[in-house]
Amino acid sequence: MSSAEHPRKAFGWAARDASGVLSPFNFSRRATGEKDVAFKVLYCGICHSDLHMVKNEWGHTVYPVVPGHEIVGEVTEVGSNVTKFKVGDRVGVGCMVGSCHSCDNCANNVENYCPKMILTYGSKYHDGTMTYGGYSDTMVVEEHFIVRIPDNLPLDAAAPLLCAGITVFSPLRYYGLDRPGAHVGVVGLGGLGHVAVKFAKAMGAKVTVISTSPNKKNEAIESLGADAFLISRNQDELEGAMGTMDGIIDTVSAHHPLLPLIGLLKSHGKLVLVGAPEKPLELPVFPLLLGRKLVGGSCIGGMKETQEMVDFAAKHNITADIEVIPIDYVNTAMGRLLKADVKYRFVIDIANTMKASS
Amino acid sequence: MSSAEHPRKAFGWAARDASGVLSPFNFSRRATGEKDVAFKVLYCGICHSDLHMVKNEWGHTVYPVVPGHEIVGEVTEVGSNVTKFKVGDRVGVGCMVGSCHSCDNCANNVENYCPKMILTYGSKYHDGTMTYGGYSDTMVVEEHFIVRIPDNLPLDAAAPLLCAGITVFSPLRYYGLDRPGAHVGVVGLGGLGHVAVKFAKAMGAKVTVISTSPNKKNEAIESLGADAFLISRNQDELEGAMGTMDGIIDTVSAHHPLLPLIGLLKSHGKLVLVGAPEKPLELPVFPLLLGRKLVGGSCIGGMKETQEMVDFAAKHNITADIEVIPIDYVNTAMGRLLKADVKYRFVIDIANTMKASS
Repeated sequence: MSSAEHPRKAFGWAARDASGVLSPFNFSRRATGEKDVAFKVLYCGICHSDLHMVKNEWGHTVYPVVPGHEIVGEVTEVGSNVTKFKVGDRVGVGCMVGSCHSCDNCANNVENYCPKMILTYGSKYHDGTMTYGGYSDTMVVEEHFIVRIPDNLPLDAAAPLLCAGITVFSPLRYYGLDRPGAHVGVVGLGGLGHVAVKFAKAMGAKVTVISTSPNKKNEAIESLGADAFLISRNQDELEGAMGTMDGIIDTVSAHHPLLPLIGLLKSHGKLVLVGAPEKPLELPVFPLLLGRKLVGGSCIGGMKETQEMVDFAAKHNITADIEVIPIDYVNTAMGRLLKADVKYRFVIDIANTMKASS
Repeated sequence: MSSAEHPRKAFGWAARDASGVLSPFNFSRRATGEKDVAFKVLYCGICHSDLHMVKNEWGHTVYPVVPGHEIVGEVTEVGSNVTKFKVGDRVGVGCMVGSCHSCDNCANNVENYCPKMILTYGSKYHDGTMTYGGYSDTMVVEEHFIVRIPDNLPLDAAAPLLCAGITVFSPLRYYGLDRPGAHVGVVGLGGLGHVAVKFAKAMGAKVTVISTSPNKKNEAIESLGADAFLISRNQDELEGAMGTMDGIIDTVSAHHPLLPLIGLLKSHGKLVLVGAPEKPLELPVFPLLLGRKLVGGSCIGGMKETQEMVDFAAKHNITADIEVIPIDYVNTAMGRLLKADVKYRFVIDIANTMKASS
């Protein structure tokens, strides 16, 4: 079944091939089902994985692809069985729009690990059509996969919470780092890392940023509130911090050495990877054994926890630091993102800049 | 201070150089201090790490080295402040004989992760002398590092519990695999693996052995009580078991791929390394992220837990499967161990076969 057969006209920007260049794209969305919420997209963040996907760097992109999974908007229609949302509500959608609702992971509110989890874009939906993401004017999403955005959060700066936010919030909780007195390292000060610093601080932890860029020190400490800053290539600085951290959230997706990070951990410390290097990393085994340390992964979060994350963010006034851009700047933004030239997240002003050409 | 200055004559077998060949060795032990327990060594297991140490394969061996850290014996003298043991008691000593008693790890009963932990052999003791292990006629050890061997455990077959036993028991507990209904994989069916199967079964888990050797299947299932057996090089067998295990105890110290083991885990599953490959292993990151899986280490256990492990073993009649040998067979045994030609642990009959030559 082609998405062209859906009854609702939609408009977005899509990449058509591995050049990754985005351009205007007419498509369609399904009618609002009984359990669906339809909303007008207002803002959509640009996640680094959007860049991988439009260029088919993970090898499974289906073109045309409309990226975007940090989506916020305003409800325009709800299905007859929708109970939690009404027209006019401020809502958000993150990385997933479906799951099986019957496996252990679904039953345990971790739909994000459901083997049949459906990604917000580039996945096959239940009806066999491809999913299209938030670089578009409207979304139609099952109520279960929609979160409420509290009134005090600005919608543009809240958008990146839906992916970057939950990606770092969930492991801070799961790995027990969300507590006063914990010493948490954050590796990489980008879209994910800068939100990780804010969350970990709000949870009461002491936070040390570990970065390759000495020029991020002032920002990390003065703007983001980190307690300390280590230059990852400065062996003396690292030596001085060895054995001091309860856990590390490692946001780096480039290939990098784990040995120094494992060394920074206390006994029983936890190195959590949330970036996804394509090639295997080198895992030194002795240091893991001798300190009963672990290297774990984490991937976004379940819907219940995503709502909790947004509510926590609202309570502590946490949003992403963003640069709002018009849609016709998106290809330039992708180029800058590739060079890490953004503080810290691009967010597309969809409602005000995306105009259907037909 | 040379160990030659100690007042108590002792006799053992030592390696003098990286050939690793063991031969008779006269040395001395300290007088029984206030908190010390002296005991006559009856049996000592041969751990694979003894083989690494006598050949200096980890690069920090000090010769002469008297190996042995799976030691059982009978108390011959206790210091004036010793409260838990008396002459005639059946006791055991594992991998460590000292720690700082003041750090967080010592305070939390995980002296095994104390940065100043003193190994049973090849370490510097508090007084500056080298420690000598259980391939010897007597031991003098601080009470804190001595466990009681319950009466129903045969001393020879209990000896390997002091290292092999605690090495697998501790991570089964720490990583939450010690529960009915858990599905636990055990990789490698050697000294550690065969005890891991017994402990995990006694804890109520379903146990699957993963081995390169098809001829171990019958033993694993019929003798050791494993529920299933996978040949690690049989891709079809592995495929059929993907995503089914809550945790895996990986006892293999040779270089080996982690990807298939991570694949065997359910979401949130735990791959625990207790063997120590010298070179880093390849860690694939995507599978860790997508299933929130972790790779952790573990190294023996604290004294409190070691006593609990021995008591658990006594309650469930768990001992190692052993081949008892005389001390003058030790070099041959080491050669066989190198070829994994033992089911599953050599134990030296110290009391009956080690005679001082001077």
